[in-house]
Amino acid sequence: MSVELIGLDGDDTLWHSESLFTVTNERIADLLAHHVDAATLDARLLDTERRNLKLFGYGAKAFTLSMIETAIEVTDGRVATHEIQTIIDLGKALLAHPVELLDGVADALAQLADRRLVLITKGDLFHQESKVAGSGLGDRFESVEIVSEKDDHTYRRVLDRLGVAPEQFVMVGNSLRSDVAPVVALGGRGVHVPYAHVWALDSEPESDVPDERWWRIDSLGELPALVAKLDG
Amino acid sequence: MSVELIGLDGDDTLWHSESLFTVTNERIADLLAHHVDAATLDARLLDTERRNLKLFGYGAKAFTLSMIETAIEVTDGRVATHEIQTIIDLGKALLAHPVELLDGVADALAQLADRRLVLITKGDLFHQESKVAGSGLGDRFESVEIVSEKDDHTYRRVLDRLGVAPEQFVMVGNSLRSDVAPVVALGGRGVHVPYAHVWALDSEPESDVPDERWWRIDSLGELPALVAKLDG
Repeated sequence: MSVELIGLDGDDTLWHSESLFTVTNERIADLLAHHVDAATLDARLLDTERRNLKLFGYGAKAFTLSMIETAIEVTDGRVATHEIQTIIDLGKALLAHPVELLDGVADALAQLADRRLVLITKGDLFHQESKVAGSGLGDRFESVEIVSEKDDHTYRRVLDRLGVAPEQFVMVGNSLRSDVAPVVALGGRGVHVPYAHVWALDSEPESDVPDERWWRIDSLGELPALVAKLDG
Repeated sequence: MSVELIGLDGDDTLWHSESLFTVTNERIADLLAHHVDAATLDARLLDTERRNLKLFGYGAKAFTLSMIETAIEVTDGRVATHEIQTIIDLGKALLAHPVELLDGVADALAQLADRRLVLITKGDLFHQESKVAGSGLGDRFESVEIVSEKDDHTYRRVLDRLGVAPEQFVMVGNSLRSDVAPVVALGGRGVHVPYAHVWALDSEPESDVPDERWWRIDSLGELPALVAKLDG
């Protein structure tokens, strides 16, 4: 089946993101080390994020608010207000951080220049737009779709809008749950490019992923060759 | 010139928003009254929001983070952590608040049922999507465009995507700066529906607005008749 449209995820597929959250987490753990050990802080943060997900959605502002809440909770209110301000400053640094492309991304997109490409990325609208702008890749994409959740409904809507059948669509990203499984469920194809760090709320046991119509590559550098193979 | 497409703003045009922020502001002013008077808090919050706008964008999470930062600053760090938690809780209440339509909205949209309508709303993606869902109006719109900034570039992109010339587009909203001026600048027409509360960062002196191709109505109930008149 021919490949009419290639979808690419942004965070941790085109540019680094989760590693920045990881570093920020470590800095906050250091900051609060005299109140709480890092493992407890991590576990409590994850509880808070899970509880807040339906209200806050994804992204650095949601992370910062959940971290402040966790810091107050886990210290029984003893966290100092200057420590809370430091958490806000670290959240701002996440938002202001320059975009760093992953290895092989610029080359792969240059090789795919004659393809229809769409960026489908989840998270905070404002921050994602500034990352697209900062990446210098915006012009490569026919359309940039910033979505609040990546489920089959979302992919169906994007494909309808662009007039492409699921069978002619290939989605590429680092998350089996968000980038691969829903697209395969629609009848499309998925390409998994694992990233070193995975956010716990975005992971999925391998057993829940589909049996077929998806491939795994080590880096985006392998994508042009795989697309050529799939475009049979 | 015929009217092919009508754009509608969401917050404070279809449903109440700024009045909820105003009430939340008052509650936080009460909470912090033993630290700071309300006028000082308001002025400092506005400074913080202006400073953070480029990083945080618009919406309740941005508001909550700026309010925490202001509370720490204005009290020289003496704000209590349980007061910060209350600020977070009030921010969550903003996000969880049921959608309340403005008077005349449901009727006006029913009367415009045979028109092409697009919702063009600014702010936090996640929260705006949940407001569209909660409004029960989602099906009325051919498309829902949640954007980070409402400037001529944004309107141009939406119109290109929907294949409509600016001359055949009418945008309706409560903000002269965001809903009327950029559309008129593109060659389209604007309808201003003032709302009782205007966020200071979203206001514009009347002298900066265009001289022609825009109209003012008191409520959305007057829109169907105005559209019939414009559609000449």
